[in-house]
Amino acid sequence: MANRDIVSLRVFSLNCWGIRYLSKHCPQRYAMIGDLLCKEQHDIVLLQEVWSEKDYLSLKKKLACSHPHSHYFKSGVIGSGLAIFSQHRIHDAFLYRYSLNGYPYMAHHGDWFGGKAVGMAILNIGTMKAHVYVTHLHAEYCREKDSYLPHRVVQAWELQQFIRHTSGGADMVILGGDLNMHPQDLGNRLLRSYTSLRDSYSETAKFDGCEDGMTLIADNPFISKKEIVPFEKGIRIDYILFKGSSKVDIRCESMSTTKGSVPDHPFPYSDHEALTTELRLDPLTQTETGSDKQTKEQDCAAGKVAELVDILTEARTEVKVGLHCAERMRYTATRTGVMGLALLFLELAIAAVPWLALGAEQPFPRASFYLLGALCFAILLTTTLLYIFYTMEVKSLQGAEDQMRLAVGSLQEKLRGFPLAQPRNNQRRPPEGQEPGAFDPEE
Amino acid sequence: MANRDIVSLRVFSLNCWGIRYLSKHCPQRYAMIGDLLCKEQHDIVLLQEVWSEKDYLSLKKKLACSHPHSHYFKSGVIGSGLAIFSQHRIHDAFLYRYSLNGYPYMAHHGDWFGGKAVGMAILNIGTMKAHVYVTHLHAEYCREKDSYLPHRVVQAWELQQFIRHTSGGADMVILGGDLNMHPQDLGNRLLRSYTSLRDSYSETAKFDGCEDGMTLIADNPFISKKEIVPFEKGIRIDYILFKGSSKVDIRCESMSTTKGSVPDHPFPYSDHEALTTELRLDPLTQTETGSDKQTKEQDCAAGKVAELVDILTEARTEVKVGLHCAERMRYTATRTGVMGLALLFLELAIAAVPWLALGAEQPFPRASFYLLGALCFAILLTTTLLYIFYTMEVKSLQGAEDQMRLAVGSLQEKLRGFPLAQPRNNQRRPPEGQEPGAFDPEE
Repeated sequence: MANRDIVSLRVFSLNCWGIRYLSKHCPQRYAMIGDLLCKEQHDIVLLQEVWSEKDYLSLKKKLACSHPHSHYFKSGVIGSGLAIFSQHRIHDAFLYRYSLNGYPYMAHHGDWFGGKAVGMAILNIGTMKAHVYVTHLHAEYCREKDSYLPHRVVQAWELQQFIRHTSGGADMVILGGDLNMHPQDLGNRLLRSYTSLRDSYSETAKFDGCEDGMTLIADNPFISKKEIVPFEKGIRIDYILFKGSSKVDIRCESMSTTKGSVPDHPFPYSDHEALTTELRLDPLTQTETGSDKQTKEQDCAAGKVAELVDILTEARTEVKVGLHCAERMRYTATRTGVMGLALLFLELAIAAVPWLALGAEQPFPRASFYLLGALCFAILLTTTLLYIFYTMEVKSLQGAEDQMRLAVGSLQEKLRGFPLAQPRNNQRRPPEGQEPGAFDPEE
Repeated sequence: MANRDIVSLRVFSLNCWGIRYLSKHCPQRYAMIGDLLCKEQHDIVLLQEVWSEKDYLSLKKKLACSHPHSHYFKSGVIGSGLAIFSQHRIHDAFLYRYSLNGYPYMAHHGDWFGGKAVGMAILNIGTMKAHVYVTHLHAEYCREKDSYLPHRVVQAWELQQFIRHTSGGADMVILGGDLNMHPQDLGNRLLRSYTSLRDSYSETAKFDGCEDGMTLIADNPFISKKEIVPFEKGIRIDYILFKGSSKVDIRCESMSTTKGSVPDHPFPYSDHEALTTELRLDPLTQTETGSDKQTKEQDCAAGKVAELVDILTEARTEVKVGLHCAERMRYTATRTGVMGLALLFLELAIAAVPWLALGAEQPFPRASFYLLGALCFAILLTTTLLYIFYTMEVKSLQGAEDQMRLAVGSLQEKLRGFPLAQPRNNQRRPPEGQEPGAFDPEE
């Protein structure tokens, strides 16, 4: 670092697959990852699935010299699994927990327990302020029939909101992580279009890694072919995205990924491939900024707004599908609960009959009575919990849909070419130097 | 609005106490609130405790002419209770859910079920961009022994983080709501010092309302004296805070509160008093901005940073107290769970003895067996749920404490007068025009 020019920045991202006692060769792989990071001395290291704080702390100890600054994002029951190591001082950290993240009863998928979130760290790189984000979205278990799609779309929506709203004063924005979305998936388009973040893989001319930039590959010994069906060779779901600002121009000099194996080691670092991106930072002078950027923006304004409206409409449809599904599930839970209650009353009535009637000529079936009672109780408890859970899901989906509708309305007004100020107030003029309809997603 | 100058902005805030069927005279009070808002035509209306979406929708219908733009923030099981009505178009909305919000088993306090959050709406007021926030923090039920204090401090911490990080591009910031904190409470100092938000009540020379700006007063018929003990007359816990930017200077022209009764009505709008603030906006030219602000900032920089460090240290202590308490509770839950498990094994052993031994000479106490079994099961279920809950609480408190430690470190470095760039890189220079140690909490 000390010998390298400040205008070059190396960023590393890896999903560590760090489930203690369950992930294969976990301690050995952490040792390998630590060695790699010590040796490579990237400026910024973004890790996902560091589920155990102990593993984070041992990495922190190992990287004390190469990466003196670090932050571990705590959340949920198990944690967010997100960690950042940096050569540059971290001044501030902030965490946003996604409102939706799968279902607690899908314990074998386990996403719900992870408390998925997006972590932000503010770094000063020389004289520039970098907002660095690390995240991990809900996994896709079956591409053909992906019941988690609405959740992932809402996560992508909240991710772009969080980045857009918190990067106001940033000179550069960097996002790394396992998005669990293919390059052209809805959530990915939503994220990239809204935030104007650029994809390292697409932006660089110098790429060294797996075919098509894939990060979950069939050649990785920890991957079962089932996970990537119907894709034979693999999929690209991990990313390093970036953007500059009016003060800094960023280009991606080169990018590389690991290729399913590590020289001199019997297994790779993780079930995901590791990404390394080299960014080149060119500070802009004030004069370059204004005219240059504005012309570019106006050129593509209408087209970009129209594209955003289309993507948002698609996202709203997906969220509505999820909403419909959640409402149906809540209805089913309610109906089952009512049936459980009816069964309980019936049982009590049956129990009351011989007690009210004269004798104990026939023995009362005590064991069946208790068993049935326990069953009714279990049904009522489960359906109540499910009802509460689905109500929260419905609320979150509705909330996201409301926000998307608001955004579509605002974009459509831009598209119609109306000035942004309220039409009723004729004395108001549009912002200086801004043509009506000029696109600025920050606005 | 149409007749008023654009540089004047009227903001209204009220905790509506809108619990359907439980709050006294709820429908009548909503009708009164609707009438007031229609008549007064404030630019921005910030409401809290609008627990029912139906009530929001009926208000929306009533205010369709006076306040054509509105947003209702959905969250949690019941909702966040937050709503915003505006004469100016709302372009974007974003919600942040606090990580801590009381305990689910404190059902009679009910805060946990509310899904407390802070809502943000982005409005264009003429050519200016306003970021408007509405929130409602956890209630204080007993000032002498406030077990929710760590939760409220963490909420205040997250609130200031959210406002600070999302208001980067704003020309003005307005926050209204029921903070459930007295003016000099730790959380309030944390919020105001970190965000530089100014308090309408303290800033105005023209105040009309209850003594000392109180918003929860003994004279309000919905208030029981117990709620405000040990304060006889009342307390100030609702606020409208604001700040301008380098582009807009804001002053508070006047402020008023209701006084516990409404003329021609038998009862007030709510158990809280309503707040109205009139803000005066003066757009600044670029030349005014730079030199003026910078001199002021540098003057008070060191003092302000030192004050912030003190407040943060106090907040960390409070969070650590909460952490200690949560860890103790988790330990108690674990111990009780283990005892429940031991009891279950003991019971099974007792049951096995007569079964293994020869005869049924003594009748097996079946009813007691089932009852004890049910008790063990209930203990195990409850302690498991509590363990999960306390683990999440511990994680959130630790997370907040980590972030606070990071912030203190960063502030102390400023205080020592070191340049912000990393000391190892001697070629780096401090940002242009910024003296080392100059205070900018956004940085």
